[in-house]
Amino acid sequence: MTYCVGMMLDAGLVFMSDTRTNAGLDNISTFKKMTTWEHKGDRVLTLLSSGNLATTQAVVSLLDERTKSREEREPSLLAVPSMFQAARLVADTLREVIDEHREAGQQADSAFQATLILGGQIAGGPPRMFLIYPEGNFIEAGRDTPFFQVGETKYGRPILVRAYDPKMSFETAMKLLLVSFDSTVKANLSVGAPFDFHLYENDSLCIGPNGRVEGDDAYFQTIAKGWGDALKEALDSLPDFHL
Amino acid sequence: MTYCVGMMLDAGLVFMSDTRTNAGLDNISTFKKMTTWEHKGDRVLTLLSSGNLATTQAVVSLLDERTKSREEREPSLLAVPSMFQAARLVADTLREVIDEHREAGQQADSAFQATLILGGQIAGGPPRMFLIYPEGNFIEAGRDTPFFQVGETKYGRPILVRAYDPKMSFETAMKLLLVSFDSTVKANLSVGAPFDFHLYENDSLCIGPNGRVEGDDAYFQTIAKGWGDALKEALDSLPDFHL
Repeated sequence: MTYCVGMMLDAGLVFMSDTRTNAGLDNISTFKKMTTWEHKGDRVLTLLSSGNLATTQAVVSLLDERTKSREEREPSLLAVPSMFQAARLVADTLREVIDEHREAGQQADSAFQATLILGGQIAGGPPRMFLIYPEGNFIEAGRDTPFFQVGETKYGRPILVRAYDPKMSFETAMKLLLVSFDSTVKANLSVGAPFDFHLYENDSLCIGPNGRVEGDDAYFQTIAKGWGDALKEALDSLPDFHL
Repeated sequence: MTYCVGMMLDAGLVFMSDTRTNAGLDNISTFKKMTTWEHKGDRVLTLLSSGNLATTQAVVSLLDERTKSREEREPSLLAVPSMFQAARLVADTLREVIDEHREAGQQADSAFQATLILGGQIAGGPPRMFLIYPEGNFIEAGRDTPFFQVGETKYGRPILVRAYDPKMSFETAMKLLLVSFDSTVKANLSVGAPFDFHLYENDSLCIGPNGRVEGDDAYFQTIAKGWGDALKEALDSLPDFHL
């Protein structure tokens, strides 16, 4: 499993992904599930991936090669004219990779599936974010659904639903996401630190603050420990049930 | 789906269950998923059920009939000598019902499955609580795992993990459970109010406070609305991330 969140704020786009992959309980590894393409002043695209690692790595590699090799330059993530076309390109590539394995005679219905979040901005258009399904179709985030989660989404959802506010700062959004990730990590072994993040500032058209929060990071530990106490206080602040 | 929680406190056992059942999105109904058997001064047993409604109703009906008809009195929930034997009886009945449908040639692997929580106390023994699987085996709650959830468990789990305290009062436990149920209801259409509850006081050997919390209950509304604000305040109380 995996846990990734892409979120639209008034200030920009926020991305966070965990790094744990596992094939069975005794075969766990750390892989980056976030990829960012940038052409300064023209476009920034960030892709978060959950699902079969071979599939998602193949998708990224194919997209990556197309951005580099001259001959196969079209269609390329660095050449498509809009975020919608970028989402179509990623979705087509995803379906192509999944179909390839399916045709190879492999059986498992869901084994090669993957779900992606693509967000970013291309000069001339607004920042947009898409959730791309293994079937190759996709939906877009908007005012009503301003964030997408993929992977092990349930544990970390209630706090996002309650505390999300489009006006929040990047700093507060990072805190909210780390609380959401911590709740998930505490409940599910298949999601684990470190967590990668990227904060894209609207209309900047260049990569924003990004990095990796380790599990033993002092700030993350403060949040993880502090959140338990804060939750208990929140519960205490509500009136008890009357028998 | 369903959401049920059984919880062991120092003071006693706490049970809560939602009431929504659905066969598809356009066929929803309200059913009580909590059944309590009592023989005052001798035993109190409460069963929470999730899964196929036909299965769980058949299990309860079989257990119920055995507690009533003279001829089939053994084995009966009102006659077994211990909580362990009660769990075995319930588990055997569950497997029996599932096997019956399976033998009838029905295909769906999981369609007739159900998972149960059984808790209570029989004179001469301590209060105990069991999670009973569709395979007919079961595990027992203890100090390390003091509560069981069945059904749509993930959304409501983080708050239980964080705020559970064996020393909490029934009043606080009800508040905690209603927060957990509210988080689940807000995220999943297959779980819905009203919520049934039963609070069994250790060694009382009689049914404790019990009843139903409606979705428009004033207290529940206070909790549901207050929790969002309390969560935001809890988040505000933690330091922001530094970019």
